[in-house]
Amino acid sequence: MRIVGGKVIVCSPGRNFVTVKLETEDGIYGLGDATLNGRELAVASYLGDHVLPLLEGRDARRIEDIWQFLYKGAYWRRGPVTMTAIAAVDAALWDIKGKALGVPVYQLLGGASRDAVLVYGHASGGTIDETVDAVGRYVAAGYHAVRAQCSVPGLTDTYGVGRGDHYEPAVRTQLHEPRWSSTRYLNFVPSLFERLRAVFGPDLHLLHDVHHRLTPIEAGRLGRALEPHHLFWMEDPTPAENQESFRLIRQHTTTPIAVGEVFNSIFDCHRLIEDESIDYIRTTVVHAGGISHLRKIASLAELHHVRTGSHGATDLSPVCLAAALHVDLSVHNFGIQEYMPHAADTDRVFPHAYRFEGGVMYPGDTPGLGVDIDEELAATFPYQRAYLPVARLTDGTVHDW
Amino acid sequence: MRIVGGKVIVCSPGRNFVTVKLETEDGIYGLGDATLNGRELAVASYLGDHVLPLLEGRDARRIEDIWQFLYKGAYWRRGPVTMTAIAAVDAALWDIKGKALGVPVYQLLGGASRDAVLVYGHASGGTIDETVDAVGRYVAAGYHAVRAQCSVPGLTDTYGVGRGDHYEPAVRTQLHEPRWSSTRYLNFVPSLFERLRAVFGPDLHLLHDVHHRLTPIEAGRLGRALEPHHLFWMEDPTPAENQESFRLIRQHTTTPIAVGEVFNSIFDCHRLIEDESIDYIRTTVVHAGGISHLRKIASLAELHHVRTGSHGATDLSPVCLAAALHVDLSVHNFGIQEYMPHAADTDRVFPHAYRFEGGVMYPGDTPGLGVDIDEELAATFPYQRAYLPVARLTDGTVHDW
Amino acid sequence: MRIVGGKVIVCSPGRNFVTVKLETEDGIYGLGDATLNGRELAVASYLGDHVLPLLEGRDARRIEDIWQFLYKGAYWRRGPVTMTAIAAVDAALWDIKGKALGVPVYQLLGGASRDAVLVYGHASGGTIDETVDAVGRYVAAGYHAVRAQCSVPGLTDTYGVGRGDHYEPAVRTQLHEPRWSSTRYLNFVPSLFERLRAVFGPDLHLLHDVHHRLTPIEAGRLGRALEPHHLFWMEDPTPAENQESFRLIRQHTTTPIAVGEVFNSIFDCHRLIEDESIDYIRTTVVHAGGISHLRKIASLAELHHVRTGSHGATDLSPVCLAAALHVDLSVHNFGIQEYMPHAADTDRVFPHAYRFEGGVMYPGDTPGLGVDIDEELAATFPYQRAYLPVARLTDGTVHDW
Amino acid sequence: MRIVGGKVIVCSPGRNFVTVKLETEDGIYGLGDATLNGRELAVASYLGDHVLPLLEGRDARRIEDIWQFLYKGAYWRRGPVTMTAIAAVDAALWDIKGKALGVPVYQLLGGASRDAVLVYGHASGGTIDETVDAVGRYVAAGYHAVRAQCSVPGLTDTYGVGRGDHYEPAVRTQLHEPRWSSTRYLNFVPSLFERLRAVFGPDLHLLHDVHHRLTPIEAGRLGRALEPHHLFWMEDPTPAENQESFRLIRQHTTTPIAVGEVFNSIFDCHRLIEDESIDYIRTTVVHAGGISHLRKIASLAELHHVRTGSHGATDLSPVCLAAALHVDLSVHNFGIQEYMPHAADTDRVFPHAYRFEGGVMYPGDTPGLGVDIDEELAATFPYQRAYLPVARLTDGTVHDW
Repeated sequence: MRIVGGKVIVCSPGRNFVTVKLETEDGIYGLGDATLNGRELAVASYLGDHVLPLLEGRDARRIEDIWQFLYKGAYWRRGPVTMTAIAAVDAALWDIKGKALGVPVYQLLGGASRDAVLVYGHASGGTIDETVDAVGRYVAAGYHAVRAQCSVPGLTDTYGVGRGDHYEPAVRTQLHEPRWSSTRYLNFVPSLFERLRAVFGPDLHLLHDVHHRLTPIEAGRLGRALEPHHLFWMEDPTPAENQESFRLIRQHTTTPIAVGEVFNSIFDCHRLIEDESIDYIRTTVVHAGGISHLRKIASLAELHHVRTGSHGATDLSPVCLAAALHVDLSVHNFGIQEYMPHAADTDRVFPHAYRFEGGVMYPGDTPGLGVDIDEELAATFPYQRAYLPVARLTDGTVHDW
Repeated sequence: MRIVGGKVIVCSPGRNFVTVKLETEDGIYGLGDATLNGRELAVASYLGDHVLPLLEGRDARRIEDIWQFLYKGAYWRRGPVTMTAIAAVDAALWDIKGKALGVPVYQLLGGASRDAVLVYGHASGGTIDETVDAVGRYVAAGYHAVRAQCSVPGLTDTYGVGRGDHYEPAVRTQLHEPRWSSTRYLNFVPSLFERLRAVFGPDLHLLHDVHHRLTPIEAGRLGRALEPHHLFWMEDPTPAENQESFRLIRQHTTTPIAVGEVFNSIFDCHRLIEDESIDYIRTTVVHAGGISHLRKIASLAELHHVRTGSHGATDLSPVCLAAALHVDLSVHNFGIQEYMPHAADTDRVFPHAYRFEGGVMYPGDTPGLGVDIDEELAATFPYQRAYLPVARLTDGTVHDW
Repeated sequence: MRIVGGKVIVCSPGRNFVTVKLETEDGIYGLGDATLNGRELAVASYLGDHVLPLLEGRDARRIEDIWQFLYKGAYWRRGPVTMTAIAAVDAALWDIKGKALGVPVYQLLGGASRDAVLVYGHASGGTIDETVDAVGRYVAAGYHAVRAQCSVPGLTDTYGVGRGDHYEPAVRTQLHEPRWSSTRYLNFVPSLFERLRAVFGPDLHLLHDVHHRLTPIEAGRLGRALEPHHLFWMEDPTPAENQESFRLIRQHTTTPIAVGEVFNSIFDCHRLIEDESIDYIRTTVVHAGGISHLRKIASLAELHHVRTGSHGATDLSPVCLAAALHVDLSVHNFGIQEYMPHAADTDRVFPHAYRFEGGVMYPGDTPGLGVDIDEELAATFPYQRAYLPVARLTDGTVHDW
Repeated sequence: MRIVGGKVIVCSPGRNFVTVKLETEDGIYGLGDATLNGRELAVASYLGDHVLPLLEGRDARRIEDIWQFLYKGAYWRRGPVTMTAIAAVDAALWDIKGKALGVPVYQLLGGASRDAVLVYGHASGGTIDETVDAVGRYVAAGYHAVRAQCSVPGLTDTYGVGRGDHYEPAVRTQLHEPRWSSTRYLNFVPSLFERLRAVFGPDLHLLHDVHHRLTPIEAGRLGRALEPHHLFWMEDPTPAENQESFRLIRQHTTTPIAVGEVFNSIFDCHRLIEDESIDYIRTTVVHAGGISHLRKIASLAELHHVRTGSHGATDLSPVCLAAALHVDLSVHNFGIQEYMPHAADTDRVFPHAYRFEGGVMYPGDTPGLGVDIDEELAATFPYQRAYLPVARLTDGTVHDW
């Protein structure tokens, strides 16, 4: 089954998405998400200018071979642009294989290991009261797990706080450089979760995203302060390029730790996993080399009591969300899946089989990934340059956003 | 001194190069190399579509701030495309600072730590005899250090072996997938260096590039087998994503180890350096985040008896070579610089102040980096798609090229 | 640009200072602080008798080369006297380079990474009430960060407690040997910070200096006892010659740890940093080998989530304070700068461009370091022997002061 | 027994020496060596300007208390100048105690653990033949252990090679900056020891001093190459500030390793000893804090199978040599003592009880250290500025001398 063509589709139905479409000689095509928030066109070029010409004529069934061909064959390895491009091709090949065999992709990954995929939603508010209300709305909507973020008093802008239940940090046209104070944040956050536990009782899964803002010792302090409120996880507590740094956090707290949306390969997290410094590995299909590579990460994690917790914000297209759900359903050591519903325009451009129901999701049983793209409609939403914010400390120093 | 404009120049005077040109309000401009062999246009897009629009209006003197802004501000960090783009901007800013202050860049990096920069050349041959002849030509040309590669009997194609003294692995238009056998290689290489030592005596610096082909234990075997011929270094003995793997090589041989052309940040090599598993760190300006970041790597290396050995093949433009020479001249723990002369067309497009003389190089004393670009001439050499080869084992398995 | 002369200026405008002045053939001169509190003349001799004669005729632009020449060339390395002497020469060479190029030194160090330099002041009192008042005065003066020290009941003399807001531990002519009890101290300090937090709320940065008085396990106890009051840092918790000892403190508390004013080279702290046993490295320009070496320490620290927290008591001259501010403004991982205003006579002898305003400092934009020395005025304040106190336990055992 | 006076005597009977003389109320005086080759006057100032005024009135019998008083009380600790000054005071106090009690110092250190002190001499030559002859002269003179150094072909100047059997690297007035090539050295040295073993048979103790010139991996190579010639030790194989680096050498060779003349305190070598990375610790009385501190180092070394190998070149005065011999005779884990006879003028200025006989030395049984100083004669040899050489690589880079 030779690959006979491929294209890169860039569109912006609500926000920017990059999609790869690979076509085979027998007319089957596969889709892969290639969206890298704020750096979309670099991936589109990587794919369109350098990768697609190499795929023509190759056997679409040799997924592992093509993965290695693109990874080792590029010579220059790893990193977000490269691995996102490879991930898109990999996901498209799994989509093709599923369609060719007439089965949903999870059936090719060992079949379902569970009935459904537990997800968590994003609640946020400008005050603790507003955040309590927002969490309440998610509970009412059937969610068993909710991530809670709240504006920090004294800061004009806090990560994760949207308008109503919508949150999209990438801003079109103009870059935003908000100021940040870890001191104010650290002094405030425990009171948020004290209140949430008081209101919602002990059983609701509460999650929180630190979003790389703290040093390891600050993260240790926060983890310890949050212990009475037993979070499901504390996410991205510190910048993670230096994996050894998580050992320090680990010494100081039993609050479970999640990290991984910024990782692009197993080499970015193998020490974290082998040291058992984390509890959830949040690598996602589109940024960590696709379904093939993500399964290897999950496999290592299983050995070390680490569960998956796939990133699933709206900066990933429905194609990636579907791929994630197939992986979630199949790997033994699944933990939880992040879920933010896409904008209505996005859903129209990417019709899909997956669905949310009662706090869990199902990938559906359509052959392949179960997501299509309406190319004509997509063409009506041209790319619009947008940027994630750049955080600065109150003195102007660039900080981790 | 505000940045008022920038552009990305892609040209192919002999081979492809990507160059960033940043302009400031006072008319001074700076150049940075952004060439990523075989993935050039992805970097060009990263810069042109995503980075340059962010730089307008920023103060060109705040080099560190802009570096952090691009690194942390992208959210998605590390990897070859990202770090090459950042490197190009960083080098251009150092070029601007040097020109603005009227001094060559090395004067801004602490001044010269030595008289000149020791370089090594690339000798290769289809047989041991031819390789001996090639090394002899380098010695006759004044080189004190020569890298020797030789076709392995039984393989139709061996890394590092060119035609005459020219070697360019990237092939235009068509991808090459040569077959590889580590067994044949391991059995052959020691005889090459036994012969070279017999011919050239003990004091000529002989280098060899394994080019990632061996497992750690094979590399240990090779290193030990080469000990009687005391190489200057054994380069890239094994794939390096897993830094801990070098400990095994290190246990088994005193042959000095060099690695780093594939690294894009300090996080790709900090364990190698802190564990003192290597002797030379070969990170280069263009692929490791620019002059600012490379100095941080060099500084860490100095603490741990590791010297620099900057990659310098012709896949880096004269702008990068100049930047490397300024770093080489200034850091205390310089080791050696790789040097392959560029094609005549390349030299014409990029007039430069650096020069080779008697086995060493000098960056020259022109303010800034000392390299310019003839944009009109560059425009006469349009980009031509080209690929590095992809190695496969004799059974067809993708291998590390 | 040859060095044609140099001199060592010893003066005592309020307290003792040693200053190096290097002159170049083109008439530019540079200043470096060489003050080592209580051992000033040994450094003056090291410089005047052994170093200055070696510098004549050397190229003032080769800062790194001269650093290595003095460091490796002395054969006997490290230690306070040696590294202070080298630091003075290094700072003077950066001063010269800045003047020669017409820019403030921070522009040569990568430019400004922030708007201004956060500083902390020294508040102390004989009682908790007095300390509360003292902290209040700093807050009223605009400080965002205050170090608080208080007399320990039952001890006649406590480190860090001055008269009013003035504190100068070095006493002229006569040595002071106060008695010390860690038991009393450990039982008292938490109540000080409980009170300060109650009065000043959660966001004021409170710092405390243990000044090497505790064993590691005592420091672990104190750190944990202070956690509810979340200090900015706990400084110098235990004597630091044995870097491994900090691991024990680190296991037991999330109170951030600062250390470094007693360190003279990267070798005194590299294990602390690489093990991530501390949060702030307080090495300072004058005692840690100058700007060139301090940047290498900062670079290592950046890799390991450690920020700078430069020592800045009045035992450093305005020349050192200026140099520190240039480094503070430029390195990415700056944390905080200690600041004690100098005596009026000191400020008159050393006219300077830096200024304090609203809790932060600015190095100013005068070319070079921005500090001069009025040699005639300096000559009116001859050196006066003075000693730091020597602490003894209540049983008379010499203890760490 | 109060200290009532002290002075610092600087003289140059053949070479520079700094000597401390402490006087007590009962008329007994003690001597301590304070010589720091090339930086003598800084130590003289440290003692004369800062330390001696603090000693008046203190009880000379409280040696440990005064040591701690000077070490901890200076606040700024460690390093060559500080520790040499403290060492001189410490040795003088032991001299006083011995004289007061009418016994040689070794009797106060636990008494003699052996009959005599094994020493090694310094043989060198411009060629292997000359070196063989020089070793032969030492053997003929009764030496059981000889250090052999030889000029490296192609280098104009090699460490350790003197004229005849005299070697004094410090050069009066003018600094020498010889060029160095580790490549040439490494290729040459094994042949020297192959020859020496052939000539002198297996039982003569042969030593060699690398003098910090190699990287750890180069030292590993040399150690392995020397194994067939089973050296007594390979000295100072690599710069030793980073103690962890010796682990690498240790992995690769069973050639015994000695290091320590550059160390000034137990903190400079405790990791080397606790890791058992070395076999001989060569710290010496004058540079490592005196007899009191050296015994603590020896004590730690005993725990870890490390023996002493005290530095004893002529840059230490007869006062230090005597002190070393008392320590050598008394500690259980003594290994060997370096011995270079002083110039005749030196011996006249410092009449002494120790003697060399049949390859071993005896401290003598004169009360105290057994060395005096003829102050009148000393005054006829005024200080003459002199410098140790500064090594540079062939490209001009400052290297470790």
